[in-house]
Amino acid sequence: MAITRIETDLLGSRELPADALIGIHTLRAVDNFDISGIKLQNFPEFLQSFAMIKKAATAANLELGLLDPVIARAIDRACDRLIAGEILAPHFPIDMMQGGAGTSTNMNVNEVIANLALQGIGRSAGSYDTVNPNDHVNLCQSTNDVYPTAIRLTILRESETLCSALSALVAAFRRKGEAFADIVKVGRTQLQDAVPMFLGQEFEAFAETLEEDIEQFLSAAELMREVNLGGTAIGTGVNAPVGFSAVVCAHLSTISGIAVRPARNLVEATSDTGAFVSVSGMLKRMSVKLSKICNDLRLLSSGPRAGFGEIRLPVMQAGSSIMPGKVNPVIPELLNQISFQVIGNDLTVTLAASAGQLQLNAMEPVIVLNILQSMRLLARGMDTLRTRCIDGIEADPQRCRALHDGALILAAALNPFVGYARAAALARTALAEGIPLREAVERDSGLPTAQIEMIFGMKTIETNESARH
Amino acid sequence: MAITRIETDLLGSRELPADALIGIHTLRAVDNFDISGIKLQNFPEFLQSFAMIKKAATAANLELGLLDPVIARAIDRACDRLIAGEILAPHFPIDMMQGGAGTSTNMNVNEVIANLALQGIGRSAGSYDTVNPNDHVNLCQSTNDVYPTAIRLTILRESETLCSALSALVAAFRRKGEAFADIVKVGRTQLQDAVPMFLGQEFEAFAETLEEDIEQFLSAAELMREVNLGGTAIGTGVNAPVGFSAVVCAHLSTISGIAVRPARNLVEATSDTGAFVSVSGMLKRMSVKLSKICNDLRLLSSGPRAGFGEIRLPVMQAGSSIMPGKVNPVIPELLNQISFQVIGNDLTVTLAASAGQLQLNAMEPVIVLNILQSMRLLARGMDTLRTRCIDGIEADPQRCRALHDGALILAAALNPFVGYARAAALARTALAEGIPLREAVERDSGLPTAQIEMIFGMKTIETNESARH
Amino acid sequence: MAITRIETDLLGSRELPADALIGIHTLRAVDNFDISGIKLQNFPEFLQSFAMIKKAATAANLELGLLDPVIARAIDRACDRLIAGEILAPHFPIDMMQGGAGTSTNMNVNEVIANLALQGIGRSAGSYDTVNPNDHVNLCQSTNDVYPTAIRLTILRESETLCSALSALVAAFRRKGEAFADIVKVGRTQLQDAVPMFLGQEFEAFAETLEEDIEQFLSAAELMREVNLGGTAIGTGVNAPVGFSAVVCAHLSTISGIAVRPARNLVEATSDTGAFVSVSGMLKRMSVKLSKICNDLRLLSSGPRAGFGEIRLPVMQAGSSIMPGKVNPVIPELLNQISFQVIGNDLTVTLAASAGQLQLNAMEPVIVLNILQSMRLLARGMDTLRTRCIDGIEADPQRCRALHDGALILAAALNPFVGYARAAALARTALAEGIPLREAVERDSGLPTAQIEMIFGMKTIETNESARH
Amino acid sequence: MAITRIETDLLGSRELPADALIGIHTLRAVDNFDISGIKLQNFPEFLQSFAMIKKAATAANLELGLLDPVIARAIDRACDRLIAGEILAPHFPIDMMQGGAGTSTNMNVNEVIANLALQGIGRSAGSYDTVNPNDHVNLCQSTNDVYPTAIRLTILRESETLCSALSALVAAFRRKGEAFADIVKVGRTQLQDAVPMFLGQEFEAFAETLEEDIEQFLSAAELMREVNLGGTAIGTGVNAPVGFSAVVCAHLSTISGIAVRPARNLVEATSDTGAFVSVSGMLKRMSVKLSKICNDLRLLSSGPRAGFGEIRLPVMQAGSSIMPGKVNPVIPELLNQISFQVIGNDLTVTLAASAGQLQLNAMEPVIVLNILQSMRLLARGMDTLRTRCIDGIEADPQRCRALHDGALILAAALNPFVGYARAAALARTALAEGIPLREAVERDSGLPTAQIEMIFGMKTIETNESARH
Repeated sequence: MAITRIETDLLGSRELPADALIGIHTLRAVDNFDISGIKLQNFPEFLQSFAMIKKAATAANLELGLLDPVIARAIDRACDRLIAGEILAPHFPIDMMQGGAGTSTNMNVNEVIANLALQGIGRSAGSYDTVNPNDHVNLCQSTNDVYPTAIRLTILRESETLCSALSALVAAFRRKGEAFADIVKVGRTQLQDAVPMFLGQEFEAFAETLEEDIEQFLSAAELMREVNLGGTAIGTGVNAPVGFSAVVCAHLSTISGIAVRPARNLVEATSDTGAFVSVSGMLKRMSVKLSKICNDLRLLSSGPRAGFGEIRLPVMQAGSSIMPGKVNPVIPELLNQISFQVIGNDLTVTLAASAGQLQLNAMEPVIVLNILQSMRLLARGMDTLRTRCIDGIEADPQRCRALHDGALILAAALNPFVGYARAAALARTALAEGIPLREAVERDSGLPTAQIEMIFGMKTIETNESARH
Repeated sequence: MAITRIETDLLGSRELPADALIGIHTLRAVDNFDISGIKLQNFPEFLQSFAMIKKAATAANLELGLLDPVIARAIDRACDRLIAGEILAPHFPIDMMQGGAGTSTNMNVNEVIANLALQGIGRSAGSYDTVNPNDHVNLCQSTNDVYPTAIRLTILRESETLCSALSALVAAFRRKGEAFADIVKVGRTQLQDAVPMFLGQEFEAFAETLEEDIEQFLSAAELMREVNLGGTAIGTGVNAPVGFSAVVCAHLSTISGIAVRPARNLVEATSDTGAFVSVSGMLKRMSVKLSKICNDLRLLSSGPRAGFGEIRLPVMQAGSSIMPGKVNPVIPELLNQISFQVIGNDLTVTLAASAGQLQLNAMEPVIVLNILQSMRLLARGMDTLRTRCIDGIEADPQRCRALHDGALILAAALNPFVGYARAAALARTALAEGIPLREAVERDSGLPTAQIEMIFGMKTIETNESARH
Repeated sequence: MAITRIETDLLGSRELPADALIGIHTLRAVDNFDISGIKLQNFPEFLQSFAMIKKAATAANLELGLLDPVIARAIDRACDRLIAGEILAPHFPIDMMQGGAGTSTNMNVNEVIANLALQGIGRSAGSYDTVNPNDHVNLCQSTNDVYPTAIRLTILRESETLCSALSALVAAFRRKGEAFADIVKVGRTQLQDAVPMFLGQEFEAFAETLEEDIEQFLSAAELMREVNLGGTAIGTGVNAPVGFSAVVCAHLSTISGIAVRPARNLVEATSDTGAFVSVSGMLKRMSVKLSKICNDLRLLSSGPRAGFGEIRLPVMQAGSSIMPGKVNPVIPELLNQISFQVIGNDLTVTLAASAGQLQLNAMEPVIVLNILQSMRLLARGMDTLRTRCIDGIEADPQRCRALHDGALILAAALNPFVGYARAAALARTALAEGIPLREAVERDSGLPTAQIEMIFGMKTIETNESARH
Repeated sequence: MAITRIETDLLGSRELPADALIGIHTLRAVDNFDISGIKLQNFPEFLQSFAMIKKAATAANLELGLLDPVIARAIDRACDRLIAGEILAPHFPIDMMQGGAGTSTNMNVNEVIANLALQGIGRSAGSYDTVNPNDHVNLCQSTNDVYPTAIRLTILRESETLCSALSALVAAFRRKGEAFADIVKVGRTQLQDAVPMFLGQEFEAFAETLEEDIEQFLSAAELMREVNLGGTAIGTGVNAPVGFSAVVCAHLSTISGIAVRPARNLVEATSDTGAFVSVSGMLKRMSVKLSKICNDLRLLSSGPRAGFGEIRLPVMQAGSSIMPGKVNPVIPELLNQISFQVIGNDLTVTLAASAGQLQLNAMEPVIVLNILQSMRLLARGMDTLRTRCIDGIEADPQRCRALHDGALILAAALNPFVGYARAAALARTALAEGIPLREAVERDSGLPTAQIEMIFGMKTIETNESARH
């Protein structure tokens, strides 16, 4: 039996191990693109989406009488093995960062499936007369419809992981919101002492602001359901029979468990990357919020003694190689950095999306790389934030109360009684003299004692009651 | 009668013309912020939103018995004058780029309204014992709820202009799509000749891709309907009665004709700028699409003789100060630049949104400046693109046909007959020898003449029929 | 005498007031580009650079015998009037945001100068047979060399203003560094109490980090000295005599007082915008530093009672429309926003620079708009920061000392005596029990009293002496 | 002999394999940061820099009498093994994306070196009483000075690889510039036919514009030579003797072969990330230029028949899974995507740099990750571009000539004879009637035949002679 086999393309011939699942097109890509070190095999979720599409196309081709049933069955079983994750790393060696609009990725998948199918029917790898990567596995398809469809399907499938992480994080913040519901503290605007609030409200706000993003992200991801599968090269459906698009999308929906449908205008859908801009934009929005929250957590836990010190983050590791006992907010800092990365990645996606030309956007490989990386960073980052930070946060109610009592934050309560201008003067006096606001009011306001009693005796909790629920 | 009057704040006193509508807080802002040259008066739509909010708050205060009816009526009439655009430029001299989270803008409006109200009841400007900018005009409000509410209302109100421009542009592209429906041409992917299509499909795709953004933008703008009005300083509603938020939003909806409602969690809503990130992100998405389209228009009209030359853009001006007769695609180039500006502005918005801290985001002034500028650039840009470019585009059907016929783009049609590998060899042969594809096929393919006839006789129009409708 | 005159271009004819300084090309631009509201007249420094270039070209043309001396003298005097700022606003009505690679701006200048020259020799405006905007004023020039040269010259000329503002700011920080040199405080890393330092060191570091940017910016601006003047349309010097480039650059250096020289490769220099990316990148770097410093100032002045409170910023205006007496760090907030704008503008410049094609970058108008705006924002912003914030900052030495003494920041000093691990345990004990570090050490460390005395008696000032100078 | 050992930190105890080179701090980091999948071991160049710094610090400590010679020698040999690349992958398992300002990375290195040193002197791993990761390996150091110094050193060391790739690419373009020196073609501005040039000039310009970036990048990298080593925690040098900084920098320069020196102000240098912004900005600039060039290459090779077709890129792989024989510009497309990634990474660096606070920037891990990735992408990308694209580019002189001759690009040559306005009219006539410019001139210009002969007989080559050299 031969040890090697020869394959040929328009550049010439190449030798491969006789039983290699990859073919010459994959070899070319390995040679051409040794760039990022981030390989197709690092994104099994993306590979599986490809296999689902190939399986759906095969089913459609069989249904439409375009493919021999034996071959179709062989291809189908090969796809199943990929979907099940049986065939992975060494067979998908190409770089995610590639020119050619994803053709290399599509051909890598086509070649592996063709050779797996050949194996399955007892033929040797490379017997492409029987099962051909282009003529059978890729039948009625083009990279230009398969590749973006695979991106869309993957984003939809990964949405669940992301939104689960987000939901769990929201719940964690809500639990802290409840636990800290009665802890009175100073509210701050522009880093200056403002008016009273509860610590629980602060954490409730974190929960609320993130919860909005579940809906917003899913709404953007919904745009992924419109695919250009069946449009082939430029959306005109060349080499595919009329109606292929509807049939293959129906199969794909069944196979993947994710409802997809043909875009209304396949020519437009072939080159359009607007929906990727939307999805990436939502990841950016999520990052902006997470970064703001983590900044707040770092501020509120600053100290432990020479800062705000209103909360304590759980200790995750020694904080310094030189300052013994120092503990740092390492998990929020991690999320800040993830946020910066996602915002940078979003710019990359934006630039790539802007670079589409005429009937195609050839820059989709860098788009999918950045979106999937961002989704992974965020999902893992939010799980880490929840389990290694939020769940273990403790409040320091005494510190909260002490800062609250020392501040001049009841000045606003004077407005109805003395007017804004007088109230301002009283507050500035207290600050300048280093005395409590009440002392300044008693001495200088001329208000009757009973009224002063009423204003300062006012329970902060009551003041806030309306906003609490 | 006095020529000047004196006003005082916590820094000291300042002299103003006796009849000045502005007061000391506006003066301070003029001194503090001489930065961008872009003034509040340059955004009358923003000012009007403020006046609507002040009118709504006054109505709510009157309804809740917090304001003397005479004063309320005076304030109400002053607001009406602002809404009608009667009182403008010189009275709103402050810079849009300002620190202080918008307090200067809010106080500028408060002061002008107070003094207009005073005038209206025959009192001299500055008689703040009667009508006070803080105690009456700003009653139950804080910059922290008024300012973001004004941003949201303005975006909603300006959405119409933007979406009208976008709709009209879509219609213009559709008209060209119809006019060019039967012009056969080569489709291109990765700037390489691909497969046949109609020029009309190219313009239909432009229409389609932009039309999607109307819905997407409106969906993002919808987030603007949730306002934090009534939350006052930090969302706890301090200094406003329970229920104020619902009452004032109802009035504001009536006054503006735009339905708004209180956010579910006013503490969260006070510091949250996520919705601005979403809106700005949609403006970015729109820009990405416009830039891609304008790049295509410039490519398709390249030449006139040494380029693609498939279409002609209308001549708008002489193109060169040195090359006589040269005409350039100045309008698409304008839109490219607008796109770059909007994408840059979106980054500014993102950075500002990330910089929120604790109970407030103090960076809202730069957010509103950038969003309103982007909306204006896009609306005007799209109107310009439509009237000065798209409407006048002419096709060159002969050139389209000639390029189509010369290309090797029917190679894909050979796949079903000779397989992908043989088809590729035939196409490369034709290219290498500089002969038509058909000649290579006749000579080298071994296909029967009748079949060759069929393949090359195939009407491109029929090939594309399925994708056409 | 006629009230109007007619001018004609390749689109047809237009009527103008008989004495209008502008001509038909300016009219076309006014019609085509009604976009941003930011006009050429808003950047007189840019206009003056144009006039200097026209004056230099005229001198070169005269020297090379290409221009009639009478006409040359008339053009020269017209240029002088523009340089002197005599002829401004109404005559430069075109939008800075324009397609056409700056041709409209160049033609606006050419037309105004031609008509001024005609006036100067007693001829009526529009007598272009005598002095022609293209054939005389623009002789041996193209927009493609004049426009980028004008950008470069303007950046060089405005560098002085920017660097003066930066230098003055550095000096202000240094003064505070000296004034606060002996105030002991806690140093903070990751917002956690770290080791002791002086407040003066903190301000010295602000000075130092900004001072570096003077040199860095000037080094980037130096790249502006290489111009493509004389390269005309695409750098091949078509329509200009051999050697024109050297002659005109020599004249321009004399006229402007700024040394410029022809680029080594004029073809490259015509389309290259790398130097603008460098300059804009330096503005971005400056912004990043300013934003970090302003964040620090806001942190250090947070409170006044429930924050760090180590310094007090001067009061610039009342901080809130609802919270009386509240004062906010409005000037640092302004600088943060300027920073966000400059970073966004830098992205716009980057996008525009990436969009060059073949022999030209047509996106230069949005590049110059953004760079000049950023330079203006930064120069004004830094002046404002210095005069309205830094100069008036006061320290609170008691607060600094109190926070220092309460913190556990001498734990690092234990390392040499007990090792990192024991020191960490002692610090954590002190924190957990809420006791001073010394108390924990005395109780648990087993160190001899004399040694403890030595460690804690150690003057912080001495500890730091080495780093001080 | 024990199979496991126990290590303890302030959180508690953990069991490790008895001979593990890593310790408890590394374990904590592995648990805390399972995020990006990109590990410290993926950047051996970064690890080696750390080892060089540890070796230098050990030498300095020995010189200053702070370290026992036996221990120092053991540590020194351990460092040598790391520098030699002997000890790698499994021992550096932590994620590059980490909170904690790099402490985990520093401790991973400290622990591995300590245990290697222990092995070297025949002690079992974990015998930290003898060689301690903190007290000996990290002696007189802090993560806050070691980590940024390692970043700087790595960038300097990797500069060579990057600049070699860039130089080689420049040379490749220059070779093509020479090879294509005599091929006449149409120059294009704004994608419109402009004036004649040589194809060689186009490639010379590519060489020139990239060559500038070698100097610019090296100039930015030069900023890396100023390090804060010796500043320890916050730059005050706490726990290091006076003068340590100078001594350790001298050793580091010798060990690494890269001259480094202490920053003038160590407090400033500890938190400053401006130099990283500069370096990243230069990578961005390089990317902008590469992207522009690759866009040009794709334009010039568009077709092969329905595009510009002036050059042919070497065929690297089959271009389409559906269109046989189609070949795409996959290598330039790769570079475009690398450019988008580097620009996105630069934004991430900018955001991280802006997020420094007080005495430290805790976001350095994401900074180093993005800069090193960008440098790697660019170096590999440029090598790929050179060897797989530029070196194999062929010109199509016939096509260049044909497009040149058909265009109307000699209109500019008419200016001196008929003036700009008449020349423009003649060009427009030729275009409208579809006739050669010369025909229109002969018929309509009234110029004597001899003069026409002279203008059109003019050798393009001569026209351009001045700009050629």
